[in-house]
Amino acid sequence: MSTDHEETIIPAEDSVGFVERQSVTLFEPPHELHFASGRRFGPISVAYETYGELSEARDNAIFICHALTGDAHAAGWHSPASRKPGWWEEFVGPGKGLDTNKYFVICANCLGGCQGTTGPSSLNPATGKPFGLEFEFITISDIVKVQSALVKFLGIEHLLGVIGGSLGGMQVLDWAAQFPDQMDSVMVLASAANLSAQGIAFNAVGRRAIYADPNFHNGQYYDSEEGPRYGLSLARMVAHITYLSEDSIEEKFGRRLQDKDAFEFNMMNETEFQIESYLHYQGKRFVQRFDANSYLYLTRAMDYFNLADSYGSIADALKQTSARFLVTSYTTDWLFPTIQSNRVVSALLQNGKHVVFTELESPFGHDSFLLEFETLKDLVSPFLENVLNARRTGARIDQGREGKLPSEENANRH
Amino acid sequence: MSTDHEETIIPAEDSVGFVERQSVTLFEPPHELHFASGRRFGPISVAYETYGELSEARDNAIFICHALTGDAHAAGWHSPASRKPGWWEEFVGPGKGLDTNKYFVICANCLGGCQGTTGPSSLNPATGKPFGLEFEFITISDIVKVQSALVKFLGIEHLLGVIGGSLGGMQVLDWAAQFPDQMDSVMVLASAANLSAQGIAFNAVGRRAIYADPNFHNGQYYDSEEGPRYGLSLARMVAHITYLSEDSIEEKFGRRLQDKDAFEFNMMNETEFQIESYLHYQGKRFVQRFDANSYLYLTRAMDYFNLADSYGSIADALKQTSARFLVTSYTTDWLFPTIQSNRVVSALLQNGKHVVFTELESPFGHDSFLLEFETLKDLVSPFLENVLNARRTGARIDQGREGKLPSEENANRH
Repeated sequence: MSTDHEETIIPAEDSVGFVERQSVTLFEPPHELHFASGRRFGPISVAYETYGELSEARDNAIFICHALTGDAHAAGWHSPASRKPGWWEEFVGPGKGLDTNKYFVICANCLGGCQGTTGPSSLNPATGKPFGLEFEFITISDIVKVQSALVKFLGIEHLLGVIGGSLGGMQVLDWAAQFPDQMDSVMVLASAANLSAQGIAFNAVGRRAIYADPNFHNGQYYDSEEGPRYGLSLARMVAHITYLSEDSIEEKFGRRLQDKDAFEFNMMNETEFQIESYLHYQGKRFVQRFDANSYLYLTRAMDYFNLADSYGSIADALKQTSARFLVTSYTTDWLFPTIQSNRVVSALLQNGKHVVFTELESPFGHDSFLLEFETLKDLVSPFLENVLNARRTGARIDQGREGKLPSEENANRH
Repeated sequence: MSTDHEETIIPAEDSVGFVERQSVTLFEPPHELHFASGRRFGPISVAYETYGELSEARDNAIFICHALTGDAHAAGWHSPASRKPGWWEEFVGPGKGLDTNKYFVICANCLGGCQGTTGPSSLNPATGKPFGLEFEFITISDIVKVQSALVKFLGIEHLLGVIGGSLGGMQVLDWAAQFPDQMDSVMVLASAANLSAQGIAFNAVGRRAIYADPNFHNGQYYDSEEGPRYGLSLARMVAHITYLSEDSIEEKFGRRLQDKDAFEFNMMNETEFQIESYLHYQGKRFVQRFDANSYLYLTRAMDYFNLADSYGSIADALKQTSARFLVTSYTTDWLFPTIQSNRVVSALLQNGKHVVFTELESPFGHDSFLLEFETLKDLVSPFLENVLNARRTGARIDQGREGKLPSEENANRH
């Protein structure tokens, strides 16, 4: 019999197979990045992965923006000993939603993250210690600037598409606003042009848990034996509830007890119900893979994101791009409900943009974009094919702007 | 100019005015209470208040079951220096929803609480220290047994009604199941026959915050300078979000900043948005008035409550009583959504019970039963008048049981 660590992975035929994380350093001084906060910062290391082949014409590149706790490893396996594939393995690969036989797919750990890209756990050259809370305050627009620089570094001037869900969807929207002439299509899943007050409230609770953990040490916990693991796991527990629909929790766990049939009447048992045990497990597992400071910075970036505020209105933010849009929401997503997608779609329609919008039926709440691959593939796959065809045949979407090519218009903006 | 502490209260004319908290000790050994956990426990001190006059016939008494963090002080003022009236001041008083000109209203701090009734912060005679986690594990049915004993102590054999919202509504349902012949009416507001898995999940997060606080000291924090105040305030913050509707948070706070017009780009500022400041304030204020151990015990009692499990089905649980029911839910309550009330109502209808059910329109989410007094009064006031009339005229509700008086049937059960 083999034990766990002896098991070796043989990737499925529709997997991109074994992949390697790559890294590049950008924004070397004196070419530091200008942050939205007004400060300058560099160098910035970016961890990224690519899947599929870039076409000769460099016209088939798609950039994936990951969500809050994602990373560059979207698909494939890092080694035969890997315990898990990339986080979007079922959506990215040969013949899958993002078909790597057709497209060159890029995913990068976002600025402020903790999986290879510069973030608060990176070494501060000035002190020789990790930045901690000395790290620059970042916004979604800073994150997207770094992504855009990476894409340029890879020799791609114009993306076929940018895609992402949740916080990733916010990045996608920011791409369209900030770099309107650098993509043919924009795919926004389970996201919004700003976080709701309720969303900010849940983020605030998660951050409070981290700040209040005595092992947080004001963000300088890296050389101590344990960081704010209670706080971070609590943050994850509460966030995790918001990712699931009420019905899916009810269905999956209901009031079932963990490993017993009858109540224990014991106040020391924190995991008597299955749902409790599940949440505690999720919290513990999360602490093993995520940095608390990154959690603080990225949730704050999410709170700050507000297309309307930054550009006057959502419509103004999305006016410049000639990209085609695909917007999806999920029926049971209460963190980023459909009404939020409606606002984006309405702003696009105001501008006469080409937009496909679908509210997908799914029981899984906000997490649906990470779980419902078939329905998403049925949308994304033909959408991208149309976009690629349009690009290759030179067909442009008529923006009703007196014959001017949108790309010409957009050029005036930069 | 007067300063705050010089202000004295002159109660409004429709207030019950100045009231005093009373106390009685019940279940003195060897007459200890038999807990659902199988253990015996006593004595139990009960803090309570009464408003209005008990009629000669003792037929106008209404018992209020308070919610998770309520107390015996439902109405009136404790002194001219009081800063706040009772928690249901706007609903209990002369001419109000529970009209103290007509009814004798009782409210008691529930077992396990921290406002005068025996709970984990009470002194354990065996150790001379507060019980802490040595306190007996309590259930809703234990809480209700104590309430019933108090009512008997007050010389009342039969209540005109029992009323309560949220956790209080669960107690009310348990009254009807456990003491089916001891009341004429049952009023269940924004409640359920069991907590949803999502509700258990949020409670688990709150408890985790308390357990993980290094000042929790395994429940024996009473002689230390500060208890688990970070944990308890965090528990309150997350619970508070669940009491509000998404729309009401959006309306009240939206994305507005606290005391400033522009972002600060400062990771040290935890209360930059108004919603954050509000939640932090709610958390801090709560810690001043509530005991963390009581929070653990009472949320656990809430998790455990399950009429269907205890009696076979909700219908079976409510079969014995001949009381009239008033059940209300609120359109925007997502913690105890209308579907939960529907289940109770459906069980009552199966039994041919007299039930009035209304889903009230309110923007305030679960908190609506503490905020929407006029609409609630318009229901409760005529409902109670009918119940009182029926009682005084001897009219009984036909249960379709071949002429047997329901009270006779119920008598067989005890």
